[in-house]
Amino acid sequence: MLNYDQFEEKTMTRKEIFHGKIIDVALDEVRLPDGKIAQRELVFHPGGVGIIAFDEQERLLLVKQFRKPLEKVILEIPAGKIDPGEGQEPELTARRELEEETGYRAQDMTHITSMYLSPGFANELLHVYHATNIEKVVNPLAQDEDEVLELYALTMAEAKQAMTEGVICDAKTIFAIQYWALLSKGK
Amino acid sequence: MLNYDQFEEKTMTRKEIFHGKIIDVALDEVRLPDGKIAQRELVFHPGGVGIIAFDEQERLLLVKQFRKPLEKVILEIPAGKIDPGEGQEPELTARRELEEETGYRAQDMTHITSMYLSPGFANELLHVYHATNIEKVVNPLAQDEDEVLELYALTMAEAKQAMTEGVICDAKTIFAIQYWALLSKGK
Repeated sequence: MLNYDQFEEKTMTRKEIFHGKIIDVALDEVRLPDGKIAQRELVFHPGGVGIIAFDEQERLLLVKQFRKPLEKVILEIPAGKIDPGEGQEPELTARRELEEETGYRAQDMTHITSMYLSPGFANELLHVYHATNIEKVVNPLAQDEDEVLELYALTMAEAKQAMTEGVICDAKTIFAIQYWALLSKGK
Repeated sequence: MLNYDQFEEKTMTRKEIFHGKIIDVALDEVRLPDGKIAQRELVFHPGGVGIIAFDEQERLLLVKQFRKPLEKVILEIPAGKIDPGEGQEPELTARRELEEETGYRAQDMTHITSMYLSPGFANELLHVYHATNIEKVVNPLAQDEDEVLELYALTMAEAKQAMTEGVICDAKTIFAIQYWALLSKGK
């Protein structure tokens, strides 16, 4: 469907700026199709997962967490980044994160979609799963050492209210609520 | 609804890593609520807009663009980052980007939602608008010098096919298609 040649930006040079635990940052000089030179600021990220799961009362599971880039606490669907070794099987990441963050384990994990979050500067790819037939685990996997989380379960009305208040305000969680709305309408 | 104190991460030190044209990168050392010290890799971004607009035949307007972080061409809803001076009025950015990228001007621009795309490491906030009563402009604003774009208009079936093929693969465009599906169901 798409013809690449007319659009491709060829890398002339790459300068590595930062090598972190989560992201790498680089600055590319590229040649545009018309021959012009441009700069591209790039963030490389291992990718992650988000999990849509409902409790016994059909409420959406959410975790409350402080997000340093926003300097505030928000509610998000359970999520996390892919660990080395999980790259080829993001479903494993989804199962691990669901258990670590909520204490639930899912019998079934259905892949819904995978989306680049910020394709203008970052290659972060988020895989979204719908976890079904979930149950509380007696001794769940421990949370990450540097995460402080609290579990919430919200009805659709509560979730919409949280969106209005800006407490739910991130792309994957807003996606999850839309997905839920479409499910309820018998998509 | 949310109690901040128990969750807040206090900044101990901030190291500035990179100051770019689009993003800034910093490394924070933070004190967690339990007293532990952790590192936070942070990307600061001015924020942006995405515009959901349909042509006369009720097809979704999309732009084809090479995305360097992904090293491929994808289809996205018209979008762009907020320029200095537009910060307080992202609707202006939405009007400008719609015209620059598609050659259409909208009579009405309705704010749908604002979402943080990657709250784990970035503060990028995307404002999504639904542009209505649009019409082709005779002499539209010029595209950005370093952008090469091509305009597409897809039916819902074509858009879903493009998602399946991975040609539509970014969060704001997948959000737009969900929004469209909910609209069609008379939300």
